[in-house]
Amino acid sequence: MENDLAQAAIASGGPCLINNGLNCISEATDASTKRQSGDKKKFTLKTPKGTRDYGPTEMAVRQQVLSTVVDCFKRHGAETIDTPVFELRETLTGKYGEEGSKLIYDLEDQGGELLSMRYDLTVPFARYLAMNKISNIKRYQIAKVYRRDNPAMTRGRYREFMQCDLDIAGDYDCMVPDAECLRIVTEILTDLQIGDFEIKVNHRRLLNGILSVCGVNETEFKTVCSSIDKLDKQPWSEVSAELINDKQLCPKVVEAMEAYLCSRAKVNSTSPNSTLIEHLRTDSLLGASVEAQTALKELTLLLSYCDAFGIADRIVFEPSLARGLDYYTGCIYEAVLTGENASEANDEASVGSVAGGGRYDQLVNMFLQKGRGVPCVGLSIGIERIFTVMERKLQREQKRIRSSETDVYVASAQKNLLLERMRLCGELWGRKFKAEMSFKENPKLLQQLQYCEDRCIPLALILGESEIQRGVVKLRVIRTRQEEEVPRNELFKLLSERLQRMTAENL
Amino acid sequence: MENDLAQAAIASGGPCLINNGLNCISEATDASTKRQSGDKKKFTLKTPKGTRDYGPTEMAVRQQVLSTVVDCFKRHGAETIDTPVFELRETLTGKYGEEGSKLIYDLEDQGGELLSMRYDLTVPFARYLAMNKISNIKRYQIAKVYRRDNPAMTRGRYREFMQCDLDIAGDYDCMVPDAECLRIVTEILTDLQIGDFEIKVNHRRLLNGILSVCGVNETEFKTVCSSIDKLDKQPWSEVSAELINDKQLCPKVVEAMEAYLCSRAKVNSTSPNSTLIEHLRTDSLLGASVEAQTALKELTLLLSYCDAFGIADRIVFEPSLARGLDYYTGCIYEAVLTGENASEANDEASVGSVAGGGRYDQLVNMFLQKGRGVPCVGLSIGIERIFTVMERKLQREQKRIRSSETDVYVASAQKNLLLERMRLCGELWGRKFKAEMSFKENPKLLQQLQYCEDRCIPLALILGESEIQRGVVKLRVIRTRQEEEVPRNELFKLLSERLQRMTAENL
Repeated sequence: MENDLAQAAIASGGPCLINNGLNCISEATDASTKRQSGDKKKFTLKTPKGTRDYGPTEMAVRQQVLSTVVDCFKRHGAETIDTPVFELRETLTGKYGEEGSKLIYDLEDQGGELLSMRYDLTVPFARYLAMNKISNIKRYQIAKVYRRDNPAMTRGRYREFMQCDLDIAGDYDCMVPDAECLRIVTEILTDLQIGDFEIKVNHRRLLNGILSVCGVNETEFKTVCSSIDKLDKQPWSEVSAELINDKQLCPKVVEAMEAYLCSRAKVNSTSPNSTLIEHLRTDSLLGASVEAQTALKELTLLLSYCDAFGIADRIVFEPSLARGLDYYTGCIYEAVLTGENASEANDEASVGSVAGGGRYDQLVNMFLQKGRGVPCVGLSIGIERIFTVMERKLQREQKRIRSSETDVYVASAQKNLLLERMRLCGELWGRKFKAEMSFKENPKLLQQLQYCEDRCIPLALILGESEIQRGVVKLRVIRTRQEEEVPRNELFKLLSERLQRMTAENL
Repeated sequence: MENDLAQAAIASGGPCLINNGLNCISEATDASTKRQSGDKKKFTLKTPKGTRDYGPTEMAVRQQVLSTVVDCFKRHGAETIDTPVFELRETLTGKYGEEGSKLIYDLEDQGGELLSMRYDLTVPFARYLAMNKISNIKRYQIAKVYRRDNPAMTRGRYREFMQCDLDIAGDYDCMVPDAECLRIVTEILTDLQIGDFEIKVNHRRLLNGILSVCGVNETEFKTVCSSIDKLDKQPWSEVSAELINDKQLCPKVVEAMEAYLCSRAKVNSTSPNSTLIEHLRTDSLLGASVEAQTALKELTLLLSYCDAFGIADRIVFEPSLARGLDYYTGCIYEAVLTGENASEANDEASVGSVAGGGRYDQLVNMFLQKGRGVPCVGLSIGIERIFTVMERKLQREQKRIRSSETDVYVASAQKNLLLERMRLCGELWGRKFKAEMSFKENPKLLQQLQYCEDRCIPLALILGESEIQRGVVKLRVIRTRQEEEVPRNELFKLLSERLQRMTAENL
């Protein structure tokens, strides 16, 4: 409960602040929104623990980012679907491992089915494919998911947060859709102008092969992988200690693993990824592992496709990349920022990934009684982290984000012109201009112009008795304060031209 | 549980059908998706009762409708906010009357706060205003809400459905924002080209005044209003019988009410709304009701504003309009279709409303310990009903809705051209063309072209060895099957021009 107040305090920042960043969660202690005394009402005015409201400015940033992402998804011919926010509890059971299952929100049994809130978008997607017998689709879905994580433990992680997935389902030729996923990740991170990045790539079966030849028991693959997964945030010494002390692996086994997992592409090699693949391919131990050899062949193919797609320079083959989720069966990948924004995506000083994904060929199968299921490969954009990076970037560049799009404000210079303002507004809306006016009968001119400045509305039309009689209206450019009289019968044409020009000049 | 199968059967219609209309809910009995036998898995492959998936084509229709609505909201300078899908249970308590409260989804008590799923967007909006001390905002919000209604009882009503609200909060001059709400409803229904419609308008305080002078006890206003609310679907005789028999009103009281409630604007009057207002204003009994006289004055003002906004011909003053929700305090309104689409919006043969709203000046106050609260007026677009009307309309007009936006398909006429296709696709995406290619290494040309026809992709680029050697590519117009050779260095310019022209010609 100690974080409830913090959540409320953050959310109460109001609609115009974009500095409600991830870092302040659980730090604030302002209790002003907690109402336990007083005679009128007794309740806590807040959002549920781990959730928050998003005000207009925050929404404007989010929508701008999302539109870049969706544009890319559509550019690749993807369709979208929608699934319910909750699923039958049994649909989610046994899909997220022991840890994940603890974090699922259950609905109360109010008589009827047992339901749970969705934990991700991938399992509902697999359920959708199985239920509708769909054998191929390229679909994206952007929606919120729910995890009863402790927001105090994992800073910046909310219990309600957005996921942004694209998946390609279908029985296709090896690594072709996988390469397109990497291309999509590259396009999105490039289009967002979020700074330099690289995409780490690995293969689950290579990881299995390495563990196997090093002498790790197959039953321990998952738990060992979850330790290896920490290698992007911890040095080998710590991971090694965890494997030996906590997970009871023989030190010799761990030592053998190090040679493979810590091998990295040589920077001064002309073709570092291929060199590393070749190095592993000809390794005496790995040569005996069918798993490893198959994976290395597939990775070689993937790299050649990345080359054809023009994204080879973004790809870094990293044998230690594990990814947390159980269901991956083939290539896996994770994009990280490497430029000046890298530290913005921090989770307590370590750089987090901004996109990830991989192949999962068995998940749909879990929903089928018979048949082969549908092979899938997908990607997930770390959209919440990207929102944070973008908000910080806008703050740093001191760029103002408009939360409304009004182009023309209809003002009056005198009293008793409400009906005149309404008539003009009505005509503007009828011609699809984005227009606004004051809701007061007799607003002061200064206040109306101040509103335009506050809201970055570029143009104002000012009505006055004399102008109305002469059949003109005063057009004011808010930024320059220049005014001119425009005949009413030329007004809409002139407004269109003026707005087009302003858009072209980037306002 | 008897409806679970129906839901599953509906949802299993797959992504390309748009005839999964409201009417088929709970009628289907296909049990093929229920899996209780077999040795592989034992579970029910379905979505929760009263919910469904939306496939790509359904989503395309929904997004098209929503973009028209959002365009209008933005044209009026509205901002958007986002609130969590669940709220503290106490936030929702006592806001929806006895009936509504029964339908709220509760989350299981997993240790911590007691939570419930949002039931509408208005109460969370009021909570947001109170919590963030916002005194004025014009905001829209489009999101799903949750009601544990019985889907078998109320056909076509889902337990998870979308709401689409715009509200204007702030202490403004009388009826000015209210009139803009009516203008927004008019614009949206006009822009959607959904056929003829009218907007019924009334005032809660007029209704109170009428009930009061007829001798209804103030404590019975709400229950009487809920009977009156049925007047759009039932004749007076039935409503009257309910009031006398079920609600124990004196027949004389009910008779007195009839005179007021069944008075309608005369069709052959030049200004029917004003005539009716004048008629009620000068009524001997109503003259004594301050409530009624205040309401009539406000309605007169509202009508003059509607006139200035150019929407007077859409407005029908109807003294019997009651609206179900308790929280309205001022003018109320409801839009209904009157043209050929009216029957499409049917709920069991009665015409339903496609938009509604009104003034609620006391709701925010319920969240405050002190202070006056924020007066609000709002509108809700009946978006789910409109989706249904639009789907039927598209079916009737046999219009195909594309669920993806691909403009150019990159095909190959021979084997071993995968890398070439990838290179060209990569270049197209880099230049922001919407492009796709087959995920097969060596797809058959006929299958590639068939895919273009199936998905309404307008153009294909066909690669062949000979063309590659000569530095050209074959451009095929799918609809006409015309082909021409284009030099690679002129390709992108030509494609842009061709696509622009096709868009201009409406493809």
